[in-house]
Amino acid sequence: MKKQQQLRPGSYKSGAGFMHHYQELVKKEMIPYQYDVLWDRIPDTEKSHVIANFLNAAKLLKGEKPQEEFYGMVFQDSDLAKWIEAAAFSLLNYPDAQLEDELDDVIRLIGDAQDSDGYLNTYFTLNGKEKRFKDLLEGHELYCSGHMIEAAVAYDQATGKDSLLKIMSRNVDCIYHHFVEEKAPGFPGHPEIELALLKMYHWTGNKKCLELAEHFINVRGVDTEFYEKEAAARDWGIWGNDPKNGEYQQSHMPVREMKDAVGHSVRAVYLYTAMADLASLTDEAALLDACRTLWKSIVNRQMYVTGAIGSTVIGEAFTKDYNLPNDTVYGETCASIGLMFFASRMLEMEPDREYSDVMERAFYNTVLAGIQLDGRHFFYVNPLEAIPGISEKAQTHRHSLIQRPSWYACACCPPNAARLIESIGMYAYGENETTGFCHLIAEGEVTMENGLAFSCETKYPYDFTITYRIKKGGKTLALRIPGWSHTWSAQRNGISIQQELVKGYLYTEVSDGDVITLRLDDSIRHIYASSKVAADTGYTCIQRGPLVYCLEGVDHDGDVLSLRIKEDGFSKALPYDKDLLSGIVPLELEGYRSAPQETLYSDRKPEQIPCTLRAIPYYTWANRGVTQMRVWIPEAK
Amino acid sequence: MKKQQQLRPGSYKSGAGFMHHYQELVKKEMIPYQYDVLWDRIPDTEKSHVIANFLNAAKLLKGEKPQEEFYGMVFQDSDLAKWIEAAAFSLLNYPDAQLEDELDDVIRLIGDAQDSDGYLNTYFTLNGKEKRFKDLLEGHELYCSGHMIEAAVAYDQATGKDSLLKIMSRNVDCIYHHFVEEKAPGFPGHPEIELALLKMYHWTGNKKCLELAEHFINVRGVDTEFYEKEAAARDWGIWGNDPKNGEYQQSHMPVREMKDAVGHSVRAVYLYTAMADLASLTDEAALLDACRTLWKSIVNRQMYVTGAIGSTVIGEAFTKDYNLPNDTVYGETCASIGLMFFASRMLEMEPDREYSDVMERAFYNTVLAGIQLDGRHFFYVNPLEAIPGISEKAQTHRHSLIQRPSWYACACCPPNAARLIESIGMYAYGENETTGFCHLIAEGEVTMENGLAFSCETKYPYDFTITYRIKKGGKTLALRIPGWSHTWSAQRNGISIQQELVKGYLYTEVSDGDVITLRLDDSIRHIYASSKVAADTGYTCIQRGPLVYCLEGVDHDGDVLSLRIKEDGFSKALPYDKDLLSGIVPLELEGYRSAPQETLYSDRKPEQIPCTLRAIPYYTWANRGVTQMRVWIPEAK
Repeated sequence: MKKQQQLRPGSYKSGAGFMHHYQELVKKEMIPYQYDVLWDRIPDTEKSHVIANFLNAAKLLKGEKPQEEFYGMVFQDSDLAKWIEAAAFSLLNYPDAQLEDELDDVIRLIGDAQDSDGYLNTYFTLNGKEKRFKDLLEGHELYCSGHMIEAAVAYDQATGKDSLLKIMSRNVDCIYHHFVEEKAPGFPGHPEIELALLKMYHWTGNKKCLELAEHFINVRGVDTEFYEKEAAARDWGIWGNDPKNGEYQQSHMPVREMKDAVGHSVRAVYLYTAMADLASLTDEAALLDACRTLWKSIVNRQMYVTGAIGSTVIGEAFTKDYNLPNDTVYGETCASIGLMFFASRMLEMEPDREYSDVMERAFYNTVLAGIQLDGRHFFYVNPLEAIPGISEKAQTHRHSLIQRPSWYACACCPPNAARLIESIGMYAYGENETTGFCHLIAEGEVTMENGLAFSCETKYPYDFTITYRIKKGGKTLALRIPGWSHTWSAQRNGISIQQELVKGYLYTEVSDGDVITLRLDDSIRHIYASSKVAADTGYTCIQRGPLVYCLEGVDHDGDVLSLRIKEDGFSKALPYDKDLLSGIVPLELEGYRSAPQETLYSDRKPEQIPCTLRAIPYYTWANRGVTQMRVWIPEAK
Repeated sequence: MKKQQQLRPGSYKSGAGFMHHYQELVKKEMIPYQYDVLWDRIPDTEKSHVIANFLNAAKLLKGEKPQEEFYGMVFQDSDLAKWIEAAAFSLLNYPDAQLEDELDDVIRLIGDAQDSDGYLNTYFTLNGKEKRFKDLLEGHELYCSGHMIEAAVAYDQATGKDSLLKIMSRNVDCIYHHFVEEKAPGFPGHPEIELALLKMYHWTGNKKCLELAEHFINVRGVDTEFYEKEAAARDWGIWGNDPKNGEYQQSHMPVREMKDAVGHSVRAVYLYTAMADLASLTDEAALLDACRTLWKSIVNRQMYVTGAIGSTVIGEAFTKDYNLPNDTVYGETCASIGLMFFASRMLEMEPDREYSDVMERAFYNTVLAGIQLDGRHFFYVNPLEAIPGISEKAQTHRHSLIQRPSWYACACCPPNAARLIESIGMYAYGENETTGFCHLIAEGEVTMENGLAFSCETKYPYDFTITYRIKKGGKTLALRIPGWSHTWSAQRNGISIQQELVKGYLYTEVSDGDVITLRLDDSIRHIYASSKVAADTGYTCIQRGPLVYCLEGVDHDGDVLSLRIKEDGFSKALPYDKDLLSGIVPLELEGYRSAPQETLYSDRKPEQIPCTLRAIPYYTWANRGVTQMRVWIPEAK
């Protein structure tokens, strides 16, 4: 029983503001660009070959000889799935007959690549049927099915066409047969299908989906030696992952006993998302408690100020509480997307800004930083400090690119961001029978199943007045007042609303024609990390609204490392500049520059020369060439 | 032609001060303890098995069946070699008939394990003759020979017994035959034999040693694909090191073209040491220039304030200029010992405190930090920040132990430190026909070949008055005035010496009976790193004399991370406390403690509560249990 649930896709239409800009970028740049990538049509770019893999698998199943061998990561199929999901959601926002035709073609191809028993995975189809479900540790076939299930649901939601859903329904039957009916042991090395099955259950009511998701969640980590046994039973492998590294693959203990977020951060948050969704479906206190504990383990002790998670490239993983290095961080774009998923599911059980604040932090900072402003280049890793000559170059920083490449051999992040943005309304808004929830501030039009309809007008995140015009009322509107907004006011039709917040939400009855105006805190804030975070002691970072700011070398003669922010110094938001970095409000801050020091070490403190610093939103970094960048800056009196 | 050369072993006898304390610790604790380790006699400690390897190799050569297989690292033999060298040097300081007998026994055993053609290496003797000199990349047999050559020279110097020298002379013949006479291609993957051969040449005048050292130095990196060819020619390996990783094994270019210190830091400095020694022997400008450039690459851009080098565990290596993380640093004890070797050889060509300052920095900080005050526990890695719960525990910090273990599977560092300390006079003092050089301040008695004889009396590094009493004069005394000593004075028989320093040295004529008194700066200094060092921006560290200080949690309620040092605050050296940490001068500093912050991030700066900080010398850290430690501390007004 959910207290509220995500807005249905298509019930939110962005208007002309910030969300609209990003949805358009996805529609106009990312979807066509990524489609060309999937077809290997972009020159001088890492090859995808995912369409070719499906074509080859289809040939093989027809008894023909495939043109080529499988190419790419074992989970290459999922790139197509995420692209379909993004494209499907975009159809809800931007109907496009040609794109829909392309989708229909691709879905037919997927059908052709499905085996008669419902099995669907080009890697294993091309590399030997006998290997199916025998390397759950590394094989990612359940992960790929999960993404394709999500795509199938989205395509049905967007177009009313169940073509892909039928394919995936047969695939679910195949998996259900193997793991439930045949009682094959095991669970996916990379959680994903669990959250997808629950999504399909929500949409279709197919009980097998619920049962299979529950099964995978419940058996996980019960036999902690499962992967060792699995590895011992085969004489092949994919990468040679260590089957004993239970934390990495979230198999170290039963999920209800988990207390600390550990291991591969994307695997972790995808699993927790499914756990939270199941907990709210089944109203199970033990599972909800585990979710709450894991949530706190992340956001209270292991999350960067940008909403990035995963402190190390080794296993793309969490490390230990408060270990948050700014330069060698992993901070995968997908992990922050997964953190938003987890937040959104927790919100469904407990409308509390504890979750929505983090969802906003992750979205406006790490997720958007993953995308170049041109929509054609992407970060996988999102550092909070980049130093040319060290980033990318040092053995310890090879993963920390200083410019966004046009594609990746492992390309999970770009289509993941695309699907999230095109479906952002689901995360921004929620509803139950009595109430409409505004979790994020997303400009546009909202129509809820409970009858509530309203528009949201704002230039947020660069302006802090938000106007909700109620078209159909008679319900409660629940507005999140962000935790960062120390001052705020709300008015109904010009009259102040005096109301206690409940877990950070302002609940107010609305009637047809009401105009609710929210004014949030526009101040420039100096943020301090807990002194347990060694990497940030003595440092501050700058936030305004939900945006974390950074300093780039290009604004400071190439040298950010010698800069200090003045404690209690003046700071100023410059006017919105539509031509700068696709439109931002830069900040000016009082600061100092350390005079150059000739030697590596000196006992004479270099002169601190007063200067004006210029900060830009973190999500726009690395759009003006190779240059130093820092989020955390030493503070000086 | 050397401008001056290292003091001959045995010509320095420590008195009753700091050096004496450490020489005694080595003699009384480290040498017997390590001897027991080599025989596998210490319970609950990583097994060495090095003696057993020699016994087994000797058996095999006699045609008997060895009791066991080879055990340990491929370079395990070198642990015995370094122990012999340490024990030999200790005999010069502390004659000990029983130890000398043990050495004679061990040397006989080494002779028994030498093949008839002079070949000596237990790994390859036990693992197949046919593999000899076929894996120079990983095999370490030339490295082991190098250490055994050093041991042989030291034992002859200490006892006049050439038993081991004869063995190693035959071994040199064997190697010379293979690489010079037979013209086998290749050079050692781990430089060491080069510096050892030059040492043997200095001592014995054996021209083959010079020729072979020159050969290995000159062929290195000329064929940059040598290791790839070597790897392709065999179907076995030891660890599977990447033969293309030329930087790691210092094979990326001919030595005279090297500009940046790269790769495995111990390999690097061992190579540079030999290059410097050869350059001074041959007076070759190109080689000297390369040495100078490499020196600057280290000390101006890649060295920690503690004299540690090697920023990453990945390849135990240098990374990139100014990348000096304090927590994930490697900073191997052996690398700082090697840096002292390099400094000492550079000094022989150019008496300049640029070198001796670094030698002192490395010795008093990283090298001594490698040894527990009890002489029975050792650090391999020397971090500048340790946080319980993160150090040792996080994937990125596994190498960064928070307490010294009693031994290591790879135990290069403990015996390396032992041999250095027992021969510290060679580094502290130097001479030529006219002059005696005091590079380090080492209390005790010095007798030079040039006839100069004097004593040095001081409680340095905890007191800054140094008295040299000249027993035999008629020469020049060259006293290094440390670069850190902004104020100083020197007196001869109570009368001030007014003299310009030449490259940081005070040259003064001395006569029999003269008393030279040097007074150095005893102030407590705040040190600043170049702002190019991202890890240290806004931070300061504390030095007094040559000692870098640190803060430990045990003195600060377990929490060092919340501390700040007050800029321009008071600081005070407490009285020398002989019972604290084997005798130290603790410091008190004005500072602040940040009040605890409840959340991970906050926009309210925590209150800065004035407090008194207590600093201890870095080399004594981790002697009072598991606790936080930091060298670099944020500075606040």
